[in-house]
Amino acid sequence: MKCLVAGGAGFIGSHLIDSLLNEGHNVVSIDNFSLGRVDNIKHLINNPFFKSYHSDLTDIDALNRIFKEHKFEHVFHLAANSDIKTSTQSPEIEYKNTFLTTYYLMECMRIYSVKKLFFSSTSAVYGEKAGESLKEDAVPLNPISYYGAAKLSSEAFIAAYSYMNDFDSLIFRFPNVIGSRLTHGVVFDFINKLRENSKKLVILGDGTQSKPYMHISDLINGIMSFTCISKPGVSMYNIGVETKTSVKIIADIICEEMGLKDVEYSYTGGKAGWKGDIPTFEYDLHKIYKTGWRAKFTSDDALRKTVKEVLGCTR
Amino acid sequence: MKCLVAGGAGFIGSHLIDSLLNEGHNVVSIDNFSLGRVDNIKHLINNPFFKSYHSDLTDIDALNRIFKEHKFEHVFHLAANSDIKTSTQSPEIEYKNTFLTTYYLMECMRIYSVKKLFFSSTSAVYGEKAGESLKEDAVPLNPISYYGAAKLSSEAFIAAYSYMNDFDSLIFRFPNVIGSRLTHGVVFDFINKLRENSKKLVILGDGTQSKPYMHISDLINGIMSFTCISKPGVSMYNIGVETKTSVKIIADIICEEMGLKDVEYSYTGGKAGWKGDIPTFEYDLHKIYKTGWRAKFTSDDALRKTVKEVLGCTR
Repeated sequence: MKCLVAGGAGFIGSHLIDSLLNEGHNVVSIDNFSLGRVDNIKHLINNPFFKSYHSDLTDIDALNRIFKEHKFEHVFHLAANSDIKTSTQSPEIEYKNTFLTTYYLMECMRIYSVKKLFFSSTSAVYGEKAGESLKEDAVPLNPISYYGAAKLSSEAFIAAYSYMNDFDSLIFRFPNVIGSRLTHGVVFDFINKLRENSKKLVILGDGTQSKPYMHISDLINGIMSFTCISKPGVSMYNIGVETKTSVKIIADIICEEMGLKDVEYSYTGGKAGWKGDIPTFEYDLHKIYKTGWRAKFTSDDALRKTVKEVLGCTR
Repeated sequence: MKCLVAGGAGFIGSHLIDSLLNEGHNVVSIDNFSLGRVDNIKHLINNPFFKSYHSDLTDIDALNRIFKEHKFEHVFHLAANSDIKTSTQSPEIEYKNTFLTTYYLMECMRIYSVKKLFFSSTSAVYGEKAGESLKEDAVPLNPISYYGAAKLSSEAFIAAYSYMNDFDSLIFRFPNVIGSRLTHGVVFDFINKLRENSKKLVILGDGTQSKPYMHISDLINGIMSFTCISKPGVSMYNIGVETKTSVKIIADIICEEMGLKDVEYSYTGGKAGWKGDIPTFEYDLHKIYKTGWRAKFTSDDALRKTVKEVLGCTR
């Protein structure tokens, strides 16, 4: 199968490409390398079944040329701004990198008759719903971050394009995903801060923000298990783990794995890390469990495995 | 109050401006006159409390200049592509005229600290839900038209901007709205077709498509009754009438009002008028009824009144 992975040099995209190539597929990556890294795909450069374009998805002329040259059968759309904290000050980042990338991909799929789509959505579409076990049909969907708004808008356009052009679209709403090749987020930040100063650690919020963290291997396994299934219209699933980990425990795990003792924590205070952050959420996972998929790693285990991977720089 | 009406020369925008001026407000209109008409606002040209800009909302530099010059207190966003049938072939129309107009208005409201918003959404965000009495929290929201997708995306961005910047946002999800100054839609089409040929009328679909039609005066009355209310965050209401009218009955009413007898109807067939059209829907209106608002005209009455207005070219 000839696949396009949009955002292929990113954290999740590059892991997905490894799996797609392993399963014998042809893969084209498009990445603007704003968050993606050459390091994530350099081991693939000589692979004859892989091709990488350094291009921005919002360059519609370039995108058209790539769709014209390759007869894609499946588009995996993993391109987005994933650094949510940064975009709270610059909504334009989400409009361009998260929403517009989707719209242009939908246009090319329509024009070049590509019918299969995978899209990476997010828990952020649900907005602030503390205390609720979030089902896929939770309401109302009032995203509180520009990131959540751009992902929900992408879902809306995917729904219309799928109906109008007979796409088979699979949407996973991701939780926090972690593992090797991370480029930002709490694990990445804490390790960098502790490398600079191993005595003190400033923690955003009050440290009790608690979310489910899923290991990248579980996510990729989930995506791959659906690639052979064709179902007309949009299929939407929460994907994640049932357990959660607080920011304070993440700090403890990282200090332990780095061999640091008596690190002095200080807290910026408040329930959320920043305005637009959702301090805690919980997924109802019954829908995806019915398909047979289940994560291997708990949130704590995923964190410990990730910290080891990042510290050891293993793939 | 200094108000911006985006899409002020359009069918609904121009009626809203008349009401805002009547109530003593200052009004600035922005319209690109793609669907809006000079005729709709020419009676206001010498009104010192009214100013009209011929500008496209996606011209962000022009929009910035207008926001800078006028210290708006309230933005009424009625600019959109409203000719849904046309955009089924050109999704770009919805991306630009319906979604991007919202995004740029949100950016200007954020930058120039305007805190009050009215937004015109639509039943099309619900997608195809035949047989359901649609509440505001109906799920899932899977729009089947590009128009519905662009409106749902607008709602999503409005939710995030409202949370992040403390906007008071009021969203009405409109049904079909009709009255004088109509620029398209079934009433407009049938009258024009019958003016060209008073013997025959081609009806899209099988004629049983049945929707609630609300008269413009009831809608404007609803919007105006909320303008003094301030409520932080997003307030969302379905607005409409409980009764519905089929396309066949609309044809009958128009023929009767035009004094035409024995017009031969022919049908293109199928349940929907076109792909992406929703042949029937029904609102649950309990939420807006609790505020005291209620439409004066039934769907049939609104249609007859509209036909008279359009034929008589009254305002």
